[in-house]
Amino acid sequence: MTAQSPRIGIIGTGAIGGFYGLMLARAGFDVHFLLRSEYAAVAEHGLHLNSTVHGKLHLHPVQAYAQAADMPACDWLLVGTKSTGNVELAPTLAQVAAPGAKVVLLQNGLDVEDSLREHLPSSLHLLGGLCYIGVHRSGPGVVEHQALGRVNLGYHSGTAANDEAQQKAIVEEGAALFHQAGIESQAMANVHQARWHKLVWNVPFNGLSVLLGTGTSAMMADESSRELIQALMTEVVKGAHACGHEIPGSYVEQMLTMTDTMADYLPSMYHDHVHKRPLELAAIYARPLAAAKAAGCELPRMQALYQALSFIDRRNR
Amino acid sequence: MTAQSPRIGIIGTGAIGGFYGLMLARAGFDVHFLLRSEYAAVAEHGLHLNSTVHGKLHLHPVQAYAQAADMPACDWLLVGTKSTGNVELAPTLAQVAAPGAKVVLLQNGLDVEDSLREHLPSSLHLLGGLCYIGVHRSGPGVVEHQALGRVNLGYHSGTAANDEAQQKAIVEEGAALFHQAGIESQAMANVHQARWHKLVWNVPFNGLSVLLGTGTSAMMADESSRELIQALMTEVVKGAHACGHEIPGSYVEQMLTMTDTMADYLPSMYHDHVHKRPLELAAIYARPLAAAKAAGCELPRMQALYQALSFIDRRNR
Repeated sequence: MTAQSPRIGIIGTGAIGGFYGLMLARAGFDVHFLLRSEYAAVAEHGLHLNSTVHGKLHLHPVQAYAQAADMPACDWLLVGTKSTGNVELAPTLAQVAAPGAKVVLLQNGLDVEDSLREHLPSSLHLLGGLCYIGVHRSGPGVVEHQALGRVNLGYHSGTAANDEAQQKAIVEEGAALFHQAGIESQAMANVHQARWHKLVWNVPFNGLSVLLGTGTSAMMADESSRELIQALMTEVVKGAHACGHEIPGSYVEQMLTMTDTMADYLPSMYHDHVHKRPLELAAIYARPLAAAKAAGCELPRMQALYQALSFIDRRNR
Repeated sequence: MTAQSPRIGIIGTGAIGGFYGLMLARAGFDVHFLLRSEYAAVAEHGLHLNSTVHGKLHLHPVQAYAQAADMPACDWLLVGTKSTGNVELAPTLAQVAAPGAKVVLLQNGLDVEDSLREHLPSSLHLLGGLCYIGVHRSGPGVVEHQALGRVNLGYHSGTAANDEAQQKAIVEEGAALFHQAGIESQAMANVHQARWHKLVWNVPFNGLSVLLGTGTSAMMADESSRELIQALMTEVVKGAHACGHEIPGSYVEQMLTMTDTMADYLPSMYHDHVHKRPLELAAIYARPLAAAKAAGCELPRMQALYQALSFIDRRNR
């Protein structure tokens, strides 16, 4: 790598931040990790990745920080925290960002950038990153990677808002970083469309994993839950269409096939529920439902699932 | 009571059979109880009812039987078993029924009479009984009665099939039995309409009690689950309408108000799930959904609930 190579900051080194940060560092990038509760463990023992794709990898030493104030200014910030804390995250991002830095939210759900945007300096570019990956933490600084890895990127807002060519250049620069780390990544013309695409998978699997208390394999193997998954996916495609984003009907079949080929996977919402953390219901359910409704489109199964999850989430904390 | 007083047989002395049988016996009727696992306990200690309405009642001795062959011929047979076992029950009913006897299925769900009918002697009248009651077993021969008690009766099939006046007379005779025992009872002109009415309550509360693992109070108190309950009720009204049975829109409000006034209640499906018994999904979900679909009416929330419950039920046994 040359000295001009961009400096990358990982904000929130959980499963997602840990995986992508480690892969980028391994590819030679200058990667700095912000941690909270796991700082001591990672500073001492490094980051471990147990991957069914890449084998066992160990990053040590790690450029790890317990406070944003100690970090150098970064050109790219990859945010792997929960979308429920985006507003509170703004000062940290402002502190760590180099002038004109690109902030990428590696989060699920619709419009997760909106609440953050108004609290960010206007000079920063904000992007959405949709991760198609099966990954979870198994201990402090230990990430289990089960399948896939693709990151699809889209430009959300910033000084390139009115300059499509610049947006394209930024998003392609981001995709190139991932490519150099051996990770599939696609530059998307429209971050909203990219987020609706990802919702097709997240809406059924995140919620049903909590409601039915199980992972993807059992849900896909049972005729009734599989029909329900397919019906929910079809509703999301309908909602996207109402909001002006075309998703081909074949995409539902594609997501089902992809899930069939995966090993059993427990989505992040399952883990959040087990650990009594707040569920990401606003981003994954409430905002898409509200957007569809504003466009005159009711999604009754998704709404019923959201209502049941809201009840469960409130009782779980 | 005179010697002409009808002889009543209780087939399946669980919470429902135990409650109505005890109340009828207490009113002076000649009531005979068929039991299985609880025979010895009831023969020795009698039937206990702890009622918030009627206080503590004790029936002892009880005319209890472990086998249908030992029972005298009965003019009315009140069936309190699960609808999942109706076909297997036919020989028992045929054995205990007096000539021209009336068989009343005190069960929830749609068309629960149909599978039984073809296995019953054609000389027997078959009626549906819809119980609006909060009741559960707390031990062998011990019934807890929490609220309500009404039984709505409708004629299903038998030798009066083409004689509306005779149907009316039979159903009113049945209602009169309950009235004499201090129990509200209404003769309904149409058993199918009566069953759709009852589904308005059972569809949301039975299923959601399993899915959300809680009783009526918590579900009614939470804004999200209350909205889901109301939406499910509205779908059932729509399904009934498609099948030719008008239920006034105000009925949904009425059911919500009734539930608000009840003490917390765990529906029978909750107890079935906890005890790993089969859930009554065919009667309460599959058949109404199929009937509505055949009439060109989709009920997406109810279908989603049915699919989730089917998954849960299969994994629970």
